[in-house]
Amino acid sequence: MTSIATEFARQNQSRFLEELKSLLRIPSVSTLPEHKSDVRRAAEVLAAELARIGMENVRLIETAGHPLVYADWLHAPGKPTALLYGHYDVQPPDPLDEWLSPPFEPTERNGNLYARGAVDDKGQMYMHVKALESLLAAGKALPLNVRVILEGEEEVGGEGIAAFVASHPPELQADFALVSDTEMFAPGLPTLCVGLRGMIYTEIEVRGAKTDLHSGMYGGAAPNPFVALAQIIAKLKDHSGKILIPGIYDNIVPPSSEELAAWQSLPFDEEHYRQTEVGSRELVGEAGYSVLERTWARPTLDVHGMPGGFIGAGAKTVIPAKATAKVSIRLVPAMTPAETFARYRDYIQHIAPPGVDVDVRLIHSGDPCLIPVDNPYIQAATAALHEVWGKETVFIRSGGSIPIVGDFARHLKLPSVMMGFGLPDDNLHAPNEKFLISNFYQGIESIIRFLEIVGEPARS
Amino acid sequence: MTSIATEFARQNQSRFLEELKSLLRIPSVSTLPEHKSDVRRAAEVLAAELARIGMENVRLIETAGHPLVYADWLHAPGKPTALLYGHYDVQPPDPLDEWLSPPFEPTERNGNLYARGAVDDKGQMYMHVKALESLLAAGKALPLNVRVILEGEEEVGGEGIAAFVASHPPELQADFALVSDTEMFAPGLPTLCVGLRGMIYTEIEVRGAKTDLHSGMYGGAAPNPFVALAQIIAKLKDHSGKILIPGIYDNIVPPSSEELAAWQSLPFDEEHYRQTEVGSRELVGEAGYSVLERTWARPTLDVHGMPGGFIGAGAKTVIPAKATAKVSIRLVPAMTPAETFARYRDYIQHIAPPGVDVDVRLIHSGDPCLIPVDNPYIQAATAALHEVWGKETVFIRSGGSIPIVGDFARHLKLPSVMMGFGLPDDNLHAPNEKFLISNFYQGIESIIRFLEIVGEPARS
Repeated sequence: MTSIATEFARQNQSRFLEELKSLLRIPSVSTLPEHKSDVRRAAEVLAAELARIGMENVRLIETAGHPLVYADWLHAPGKPTALLYGHYDVQPPDPLDEWLSPPFEPTERNGNLYARGAVDDKGQMYMHVKALESLLAAGKALPLNVRVILEGEEEVGGEGIAAFVASHPPELQADFALVSDTEMFAPGLPTLCVGLRGMIYTEIEVRGAKTDLHSGMYGGAAPNPFVALAQIIAKLKDHSGKILIPGIYDNIVPPSSEELAAWQSLPFDEEHYRQTEVGSRELVGEAGYSVLERTWARPTLDVHGMPGGFIGAGAKTVIPAKATAKVSIRLVPAMTPAETFARYRDYIQHIAPPGVDVDVRLIHSGDPCLIPVDNPYIQAATAALHEVWGKETVFIRSGGSIPIVGDFARHLKLPSVMMGFGLPDDNLHAPNEKFLISNFYQGIESIIRFLEIVGEPARS
Repeated sequence: MTSIATEFARQNQSRFLEELKSLLRIPSVSTLPEHKSDVRRAAEVLAAELARIGMENVRLIETAGHPLVYADWLHAPGKPTALLYGHYDVQPPDPLDEWLSPPFEPTERNGNLYARGAVDDKGQMYMHVKALESLLAAGKALPLNVRVILEGEEEVGGEGIAAFVASHPPELQADFALVSDTEMFAPGLPTLCVGLRGMIYTEIEVRGAKTDLHSGMYGGAAPNPFVALAQIIAKLKDHSGKILIPGIYDNIVPPSSEELAAWQSLPFDEEHYRQTEVGSRELVGEAGYSVLERTWARPTLDVHGMPGGFIGAGAKTVIPAKATAKVSIRLVPAMTPAETFARYRDYIQHIAPPGVDVDVRLIHSGDPCLIPVDNPYIQAATAALHEVWGKETVFIRSGGSIPIVGDFARHLKLPSVMMGFGLPDDNLHAPNEKFLISNFYQGIESIIRFLEIVGEPARS
């Protein structure tokens, strides 16, 4: 049976898509100061749209960084209250020259919409807005109480919303959160994400000489910060991918045998994954763990860039005075950012080679989280997904970090339903990010039905 | 006894300095394509000046890169012929924000002239030009035959002049070369450099995944090119500075016991050097060798920069598809660039971690060289320096590379007199490069007297 709201969504698909394109044209790159006004503009556009569709108390909430967008509709007494979360900021688009179409000019190809933020997270966040519009248009009322909170700092650590959540504001009182910032395990396979890795994002700064020196004159006497960084990094992780920081694996709670068994039955072809998603000569990682275990349930360490020295074309024979490495560690239950960072920092100071000064800085962090699958909202989501997609839902984890989900759990005691419609090859954080357009439409329908089912009398 | 040419030089000091400043204002950065026309402009200015002072056959010689400047004066039959070499290109000025005055606006402070190229090598090369002007102005003739060859690619490997030298052109027929691109061992201490290290400058490119990937989704499965590079670099050199490439030390001819003894008597205060020149927490390098041995007579390995990934402010959680390290090795007699590069490349391929493809590229290279101190030109230089500076000359080596000196020896059988007037704290290749102005003046007088002594009848 198709609901009236679902019918409305179907009849307005092409308008919804054009509106999403307009939103994607705003380069709301939260990490780049030159885009600060673009980030605010995206917030203002969303606030105006939420007001237009009939949400109430719409406003921007200022933070130390980019603003939050708030809206609510609270006229369903006795019904649960949903907190709909999304983020309207995006990753930087570089390297620009690898995009087949401009990152901020959304382009349709092969049934996909290509743009920075298409799936992470503007496209997915906008599904929430369009589901609310469809429900309000269909019935002049929502089937439950709804609060919407959107942030513009997810890609830079989400400090503003984290501080807001920690203050227990009345605007966030709810029974559960709905977060669409994850992916389906495979095309057409309805998926709920019930676990996320946490993260510490750090910088290691190594300083040697007081100024840049000529490598001919001083090579053999002056410490080289890049060599020192390489020596440090080589001791953080071995060739097998095992992290060498003492005690790093001490507090890990491994997945249950039931969860591991469910993962084993997922449609996962490691060789296909290697070829089509990663494209490397071979996959790497800790021996004795499957790819899904390694990326979902094991801590991993990556280096993202090493600023400093000479990076232009050609040759400059310099021993730079300093060099930096941007390094992150992904965390799994029950690791904590604070303890992990302390172990990491202390170990680096311990292994630092002679002649250099080393600073280890925490840039941002987030807790890992695990959602119990027996809560009623996960059950309602499963029912909605079955209606729309005609299949049983699979429960997966994600290797990524959505710190807000941990904050909702810790501060507000809210379970999160992570119902995402991205696909594994959507190029998140990379050139040619995309969103399958049919998933955008079916995602809207899934969210409509989920909110309708949660609001049904039997559940209230 | 002061020669007439020396008198001329003294009377024209302030004009010479102003002319040098004009030359330093031209940002002739040879490695940056956007400065190509500036490099040519510097060549044209020098050619015009050589013609103005009375040199003949002045012309630019085109190469595949930046042009050579040639001039001669060959009217001293029976006298030796000197080949005066210098370079008019400079290193990039970055990091710009560490300069106290703009790199291309020469500024006098505390008796020094600050500018990119002040000492390396525009200031020193210009001493040759002004010595020739003084000699020609004083006697309407030079005391010997002189050819001048200036290049604009020294800082990027000097391929153009290397190819020119290898072709044995008649323009370079001479008895010896004079090169002023080195430094005095200490202020006021006349110094001849009789040994140079060679170099291979390389890039190691590591490729993992086919595209940039999200470190949350793929951390634990996708290879990280920066981690792989760090693992490689950590195996190139140990904490003590020992290079770990098999066979790298096999062909080294150590300094003689006499040379080592002479080095021991040089006025060198290691703690002062550490504090004032390097400024690091401690000095590094191979155990069992003094600082002078390590920087003059031992091969060393340095990393200059590691382009790739995310180097902006803040955080981007990317596993980059590729990363590169710019790495050089300094060579000492009798190492060769070809054999050293082959050992280095083969070793890197051998130690490359799993999951990645590694390319090792040679960007440019130069031979090490050692000049016998008993040749008559070195003797004449010693006499000239004694007159001007009132002290015995010390013979040192330089850790830097001047590949052209090796080319002059190998192809043209010319011994080089490396008479330099830079100082150890002149910040070559670094912010706030400088040249002591009194050394510019006394350097001109030293070169005048050197050429006069070589041209004296007793020596012809």
